[in-house]
Amino acid sequence: MRDEFAIIADFLAPLAADNPGAFGLTDDAAVLPAEAGQDLIVTADAAVAGVHFLASDDAADVARKLLRMNLSDLAAMGAAPVGYLLTAALPRNTVEAWLRRFTEGLRQDQEAFGIGLLGGDLVSADGPPTLSLTALGRVPAGTALRRTGARAGDLIYVSGTIGDGALGLKAVRGEIEGLEAGQRDFLARRYRLPRPRLELGQRLRGLARGVIDISDGLAADLGHICRLAGCGAEVEAARVPLSEAARAALAMAPDLLVAALTGGDDYELLFTLAPPREAAIAALGEENALPLTCIGRITRSGGVRVIDSKGTPLDLGEGGYRHF
Amino acid sequence: MRDEFAIIADFLAPLAADNPGAFGLTDDAAVLPAEAGQDLIVTADAAVAGVHFLASDDAADVARKLLRMNLSDLAAMGAAPVGYLLTAALPRNTVEAWLRRFTEGLRQDQEAFGIGLLGGDLVSADGPPTLSLTALGRVPAGTALRRTGARAGDLIYVSGTIGDGALGLKAVRGEIEGLEAGQRDFLARRYRLPRPRLELGQRLRGLARGVIDISDGLAADLGHICRLAGCGAEVEAARVPLSEAARAALAMAPDLLVAALTGGDDYELLFTLAPPREAAIAALGEENALPLTCIGRITRSGGVRVIDSKGTPLDLGEGGYRHF
Repeated sequence: MRDEFAIIADFLAPLAADNPGAFGLTDDAAVLPAEAGQDLIVTADAAVAGVHFLASDDAADVARKLLRMNLSDLAAMGAAPVGYLLTAALPRNTVEAWLRRFTEGLRQDQEAFGIGLLGGDLVSADGPPTLSLTALGRVPAGTALRRTGARAGDLIYVSGTIGDGALGLKAVRGEIEGLEAGQRDFLARRYRLPRPRLELGQRLRGLARGVIDISDGLAADLGHICRLAGCGAEVEAARVPLSEAARAALAMAPDLLVAALTGGDDYELLFTLAPPREAAIAALGEENALPLTCIGRITRSGGVRVIDSKGTPLDLGEGGYRHF
Repeated sequence: MRDEFAIIADFLAPLAADNPGAFGLTDDAAVLPAEAGQDLIVTADAAVAGVHFLASDDAADVARKLLRMNLSDLAAMGAAPVGYLLTAALPRNTVEAWLRRFTEGLRQDQEAFGIGLLGGDLVSADGPPTLSLTALGRVPAGTALRRTGARAGDLIYVSGTIGDGALGLKAVRGEIEGLEAGQRDFLARRYRLPRPRLELGQRLRGLARGVIDISDGLAADLGHICRLAGCGAEVEAARVPLSEAARAALAMAPDLLVAALTGGDDYELLFTLAPPREAAIAALGEENALPLTCIGRITRSGGVRVIDSKGTPLDLGEGGYRHF
């Protein structure tokens, strides 16, 4: 086995080639040049084999999802991505084969999102592959979006379609019977390769009030927005936008609706809006060719309620994934 | 076991209290306000139980060392620290007890170094505790120190004393016989709690040429400087500054000299200097009450040679720690 300097030079340094401040990963740290009037946005997420992905998953997909989870956090703050740092604790015996696919995934997404590797660390470990990624972005000073700021009367919007992540995980596990192959693949892909809504996030600056990306599930993430603002929310289940594949799955197993409303991994943006801004959002959705759907309203209190077409609240159980 | 939101609120949010841009860890990411004319410096390091520390080590020391390793990278770039992000993958059954000590260590060092937590992630894992820390710092635009830039004829300096880290690890493992308790404790402490040379790094801006922090060992890190500059180095073993405890260890077991010259974990700064700058460095050392010692000279070629008092090169073996 070659030493880590050779492995870094082969697999990781090429990912830093377009960032002059990364110095080809030869230095102690990287330099991000000053940009006048720009706040820096930073976020970090970890992923562990056996918890966030399967050891048998294609490492290229693992890399891309980890990167996109972080980019989704930048999107929720309204930031444009700048670069990222990566630390990886990998078992000695698999490091090169695994890194080959992992860095291939990063390479693809770096190109897709116009960012580069800034630095990090590569260490050996006896446990499962464990990864940590820190993403950096920028916004014009003072314009970062926040989770706080929702007010009673605000409209609640989501981008794209909801529940594909949770249904995709079930589809990958073979827990949804009767789906067509194309629908199963669509949902699996939505689970494996979420699309961070970076364009939308940047366009929401100065427009949306409470903004979050849906990673823990629609109900839980809307709950975060409500708790921070000291208010409640009422969502009409029938207005929650579903993909064709999700609708097909729900037609066969209506119980899956709860999974769609509470499952994580959608990485769509949820935001609240003062009603007079409605027209601006409609125009924005058309411009970006991304559905932006009003699903309900912020209320004075009462937690998050999701009601059916008769106005009866649905029982969502515990909702949201918990780590401990 | 409580969920991760409660654990984050109890243990981690207090560490972010002094950073308004961390929003009490309630948002998707943190904001670092723009600072005109300042480049941002970023670095990340990982630490895994069983590799970088023992599962039985005090988690407070583990936290402080991980933070200081990263601060040492900032020091080597001449940066002032600003804040950090942390991701932790922890076994479910130990998370609260372990985090209590771990965050206590962070709290102490945050105060010592005037920085705060900006964000991160906390996840469960079946493997050993695995940590990743990203540190951010700032330098006036264009003034970051680099590893590159050494030239033949430059003087080679190190701060503090060399080899305490490697001898400290041996002392902790009971591999050095005959040390007095006070000497053993001194070396163990140097190994467990290195002191990042942040003040010195900032003072070296515009003064030093090739700068690196000694984490892989004096020989290996000087090797990095030489490889990047396409030159060699000659170090006089007798001039390498040793602590009293290290001298006591070497008096009993002269073979330990190789460990002192090649072992890692010193986290002192090594830098090269054009000879006319010698007086400025002498003044700087006195001002900071930190020994700065010239140990040799950059040569045109020949790799890193360490010579004894008769001019005979020492055999350093492989030198430097390798992960894979």
